[in-house]
Amino acid sequence: MSINTSINQQWKMQVVERFLEILKVPYGDFQAIGNLADAINDVESVEQTVELLSQHPTAKYAFQNRLLLEDYDLDQLYTLNQNTLGYIYSNHMKSNNLKPIQPRAIENDYTYLMYHLTETHDVWHVVTGSDTSMAGETKLQSFVAAQLKTSRFSFAMLAKNLLKTAVEDLELAQLLMDSLAAGWVMGKQAKPLFGIQWNKLWNIPLTQLQSEWNVIL
Amino acid sequence: MSINTSINQQWKMQVVERFLEILKVPYGDFQAIGNLADAINDVESVEQTVELLSQHPTAKYAFQNRLLLEDYDLDQLYTLNQNTLGYIYSNHMKSNNLKPIQPRAIENDYTYLMYHLTETHDVWHVVTGSDTSMAGETKLQSFVAAQLKTSRFSFAMLAKNLLKTAVEDLELAQLLMDSLAAGWVMGKQAKPLFGIQWNKLWNIPLTQLQSEWNVIL
Repeated sequence: MSINTSINQQWKMQVVERFLEILKVPYGDFQAIGNLADAINDVESVEQTVELLSQHPTAKYAFQNRLLLEDYDLDQLYTLNQNTLGYIYSNHMKSNNLKPIQPRAIENDYTYLMYHLTETHDVWHVVTGSDTSMAGETKLQSFVAAQLKTSRFSFAMLAKNLLKTAVEDLELAQLLMDSLAAGWVMGKQAKPLFGIQWNKLWNIPLTQLQSEWNVIL
Repeated sequence: MSINTSINQQWKMQVVERFLEILKVPYGDFQAIGNLADAINDVESVEQTVELLSQHPTAKYAFQNRLLLEDYDLDQLYTLNQNTLGYIYSNHMKSNNLKPIQPRAIENDYTYLMYHLTETHDVWHVVTGSDTSMAGETKLQSFVAAQLKTSRFSFAMLAKNLLKTAVEDLELAQLLMDSLAAGWVMGKQAKPLFGIQWNKLWNIPLTQLQSEWNVIL
C-alpha cells in the first residue's frame, strides 16, 4: 500500500467514525457537527469550493476582503418595517431565542468560508423561507450544498439526516425528502448568495431581495 | 434499560454495521444490499408499506394473488415494434447483459414485496427513463422511495449513495443530488406502479404507458 493510499484509508476511517458519532447525537449537536466538518473537509475540495464561489464577483470580493456582518442590534432591526429583511431576521432570531455568534480569528480562506457561512446561517434561513425544524434545516442544508457545489460536509450532513430519519423517525422521512429535493432545486436556481453584505440590506423588503437573487420559494 | 429499548439498540447497531459494510463495497454489491435490507426492514414498517401500497387496487390485487411476471422471452420481445415497452425493455436487458431473475418461493407479503420489486426492477428502469449508471440507479431508488413511502431500506440506500459519493466521488455528487431530487419528484407525481402486470403490456408503446401512469420524465 502506498503512503497516499494509506493516508486516504485513514481519512476515510476518520470520516466514518465522525459520521457514526453524529448519527448517535441529537440533531443540532454543534460539537459533533464541527468534528464531522473538520474530518471530512480536505484541503483540495475546500480550495475547489472557494474557487467555484469566487467565479461570482460578490463572493470574490468577500474572500479578498474577508467581509463580515459586523455588529448589529437585533432590537434596532426589530423596529424596521415588518416586510424588511432586518425585521424578519430579527423576529426569526428572537422567536428562536438565538443570538448573533461571537467573532473568531480568520486565518485563511477556509476559516473565512466556515465563519461567514455560520454567521449568516440564520439570514439564509430567512431568505430561503426555511424554519428551524428538522425539515427546514434540511431544506437549507440542501440549498447550501447546491450553492457550494463541492462541499463534502454538506452532502454528508444530508446523508446523515436521511439515515437518521430512516432509522429513528420514519414518519418524518417523506417530509425530509421533500425538503431535500426542494432545497436542492432552489439552491441551483438562485444566484450565489455567498458573500452578500446583508448588513447593508436590512431595510430592503425581503421579497424584493428574494426576487433579485432568484430565490423561488 | 427495558427489553424493548435493548432490542431497539441492538437493531440500530446492526443497521449501522450493515450500513458500514455497504459503504465499503462497490456500488451494486448484491450481498451487501441484501444484508442491509434484512437488517433495516422491521416488520412494522414493512406492514405499513404493504398497507399503503394496498390502498391502490392494482397493488391490492397483486398482493392478494401474489402475481409475478411469469416467463418471458427477451428474444421474442426484441421482435416487437421499437416504440413498445417489450422492445425497449428487451433492448435494455441485452445492452446491459442482464437476464430475468430466477423465481423464488413467496412465503408472505414481505417476500412478495421484495421479489416483485426485484423482478420488475429493470422494467421500472425503462419506464422511469433511468439508465444503470450510479446517477440512473439513484434516480430510480429515489423514485421507489417515493412510491413505497415508508421503506427504511430505500432511504438508507439513498443516504449510502450520498455519503459514498461525498467521500469517494465528489465530482459526481451534484449529478447524484440532481438524480435524487428528480426521482423523488417523479415518484410522487406518478401513479403507483407496484403490482402492474407488465407482461400483459409488452406490445404497448412506452410513451403511452408513461402518460397513463403520469410518469413525467
